[in-house]
Amino acid sequence: MEREMEERMNAPASIAPLRFALLAEAGGGQARRGELRLARGAIQTPAFMPVGTQATVKTLHPDEVEATGARIILANTYHLMLRPGLETLRDAGGLHRFMGWRRPILTDCGGFQIFSLAQHARVRDEGVTFRSHIDGSPHALTPERAVDLQIGWGSDIAMALDHLVGLPASREVVRDAAERSHRWLARCVARHRELDGASGGTALFGICQGGLEPDLRRDSARVVAAADVAGCAVGGLSVGEPKEEMAAMLEVVTPELPRDKPRYLMGVGSPEDLWMGVERGIDLFDCVLPTRLARNGALFTPGGRIAIRNRRWSQHHRPIDETCDCDACSRFTAAYLHHLFRANEVLGLRLASVHNLRFLAREMEAIRAAIEADAFGSAAAAFRERYRPVGAT
Amino acid sequence: MEREMEERMNAPASIAPLRFALLAEAGGGQARRGELRLARGAIQTPAFMPVGTQATVKTLHPDEVEATGARIILANTYHLMLRPGLETLRDAGGLHRFMGWRRPILTDCGGFQIFSLAQHARVRDEGVTFRSHIDGSPHALTPERAVDLQIGWGSDIAMALDHLVGLPASREVVRDAAERSHRWLARCVARHRELDGASGGTALFGICQGGLEPDLRRDSARVVAAADVAGCAVGGLSVGEPKEEMAAMLEVVTPELPRDKPRYLMGVGSPEDLWMGVERGIDLFDCVLPTRLARNGALFTPGGRIAIRNRRWSQHHRPIDETCDCDACSRFTAAYLHHLFRANEVLGLRLASVHNLRFLAREMEAIRAAIEADAFGSAAAAFRERYRPVGAT
Repeated sequence: MEREMEERMNAPASIAPLRFALLAEAGGGQARRGELRLARGAIQTPAFMPVGTQATVKTLHPDEVEATGARIILANTYHLMLRPGLETLRDAGGLHRFMGWRRPILTDCGGFQIFSLAQHARVRDEGVTFRSHIDGSPHALTPERAVDLQIGWGSDIAMALDHLVGLPASREVVRDAAERSHRWLARCVARHRELDGASGGTALFGICQGGLEPDLRRDSARVVAAADVAGCAVGGLSVGEPKEEMAAMLEVVTPELPRDKPRYLMGVGSPEDLWMGVERGIDLFDCVLPTRLARNGALFTPGGRIAIRNRRWSQHHRPIDETCDCDACSRFTAAYLHHLFRANEVLGLRLASVHNLRFLAREMEAIRAAIEADAFGSAAAAFRERYRPVGAT
Repeated sequence: MEREMEERMNAPASIAPLRFALLAEAGGGQARRGELRLARGAIQTPAFMPVGTQATVKTLHPDEVEATGARIILANTYHLMLRPGLETLRDAGGLHRFMGWRRPILTDCGGFQIFSLAQHARVRDEGVTFRSHIDGSPHALTPERAVDLQIGWGSDIAMALDHLVGLPASREVVRDAAERSHRWLARCVARHRELDGASGGTALFGICQGGLEPDLRRDSARVVAAADVAGCAVGGLSVGEPKEEMAAMLEVVTPELPRDKPRYLMGVGSPEDLWMGVERGIDLFDCVLPTRLARNGALFTPGGRIAIRNRRWSQHHRPIDETCDCDACSRFTAAYLHHLFRANEVLGLRLASVHNLRFLAREMEAIRAAIEADAFGSAAAAFRERYRPVGAT
């Protein structure tokens, strides 16, 4: 880690913190194969980013996360600003050193958690005030502060602050939030430039909003596309709307986004949604789903999700997924995992988390290989033929 | 694992499953340095055995347990017989294969948990009947059944069934339980012989009882010493009595035990008690203490226990224990562990468990080196000078 951090320190200030190269595009479709280069490492795209909400991917050691194939993880600005806080992270030598993860970290802007988790969130043009869900203490987040925090603890990719609204919402509410997000994006870009975040190694992404209104989505995509950012994110989706509507919004948005910048669909991570997103031109995904499902005993397999607590696994002395090379499948049986879950043993949560993350990483490997072989369409069809989603509409 | 299991299968039936060699004895004292050889591996003694109650050392992967230096672990017959049960363990290819631990496993006899955890335990000379703490289902355990179970799932060391009484208890109650334990021991030895447990790779240990009554303890030690067992255990101590009384009982018991068989003090595992036990001739220890304390955020350090949730660690950007080579101390800071505990993150429980087990393993390494160098007394004194026990009387 020391060496890599030094290398980063010594990198010429003039080099952009993020370089994105498009390596292949699926013939006739939007699916793209790329490489995203950051000072702390390269990421082959499309890629899925595991979520380490509170500076740890739940239940896992950073070495285990890396062993699943993850090359970038996400952490949450809302959580980190409250606990342990910027000062502690700075004193620790940055977020990476604090949590023992040497590869890139993307931090979200805090917006989503403020509107979903914090208490008494109040939005003004200046920014958001809210109370901590931990101890009720009052806090404020402005676009500038969101950038300060993320640069301060050393994020490789920082997200601009956005204003999220729950769906369904009236057109006027959606429009108001999207326009505020645009004004905040401009302030984030200015702050990022003022602090010379790029030389410090932090790239900035913008987020487009617009709910389920095609014209607002298109307008928002154009604003983000025109901004001086290193990548473009699609926010405010995967919040409970039907999957067809999410897909329809992506079809409106991605054609507006610059071809040469990475595109990130926030909060998406079911096996079927990853294929759907890539098909519509998305390069990056994140979601707590694989690790949260794992802790509930729901495991991805090629045929669909299984519930490991179900009695049918109690005598299954074979791996959960015979095709999988993860530690859970290489070393342990479904019967053992069933036992661990029945006995409420932490090792069960760990092995299930390792498996679900490895499952998604292997899925992304298969997606990348399919794009390279110009066979994305048939690979997607084969996946859909085989995998039975749960909760899909 | 496959290879080692085959080796075991092919081992000549005439070879004892356990060989114990005394390598050194501390001049003037009882402390012994030995080597315990089992088909699945050798154990340098004195040794501490981490506890994997339900076929997993809580929160840890078997590789992590091994990396702490553990060369044998303990599992609980009471828990395993209820869940997952003998049949599942047999179908899995044995306990080792089920839980992914390839080195030796000692299983206790179930007595302690039946009397401390199960409901409606009722003792007759035939055996014990009780109800499961999980679902209230009725069960019975006899000396024969205890041996059948432990041989059945492939324990390397099986413990004879004993009758434990809580302390304080009247002399008559203690005597009655000790005498029943002796009758049960004889039946366990007979059953172990009948099943040819030794050729199957399972060694049998006897357990002496006798509460805090010196003469009953001495008598019980003599009965166990005279039995055809591979090792002798001291049970019924460390159940809340003052530490001086435990020490006094050991001073009565160990002189009665055969010099050439390993001696195991059950349920003991605080740093200070390990020195105390070795000093009185004990070779093996087990206890849930290091892992249970760890999950409560209490960590062993050379100066004594610390509470990692305490605010004083929030800005300590150094390892918990600068002298420790465990993963928690090599890769992470006290500030990060503090954060993980405050944020209720599982990785905190894991790192703390790794650290406490490694701390005890290193302590046992130091004890063995001290005996070899004929410097046990001064090493014990140096430890006591430095280490401040918590809860010591």
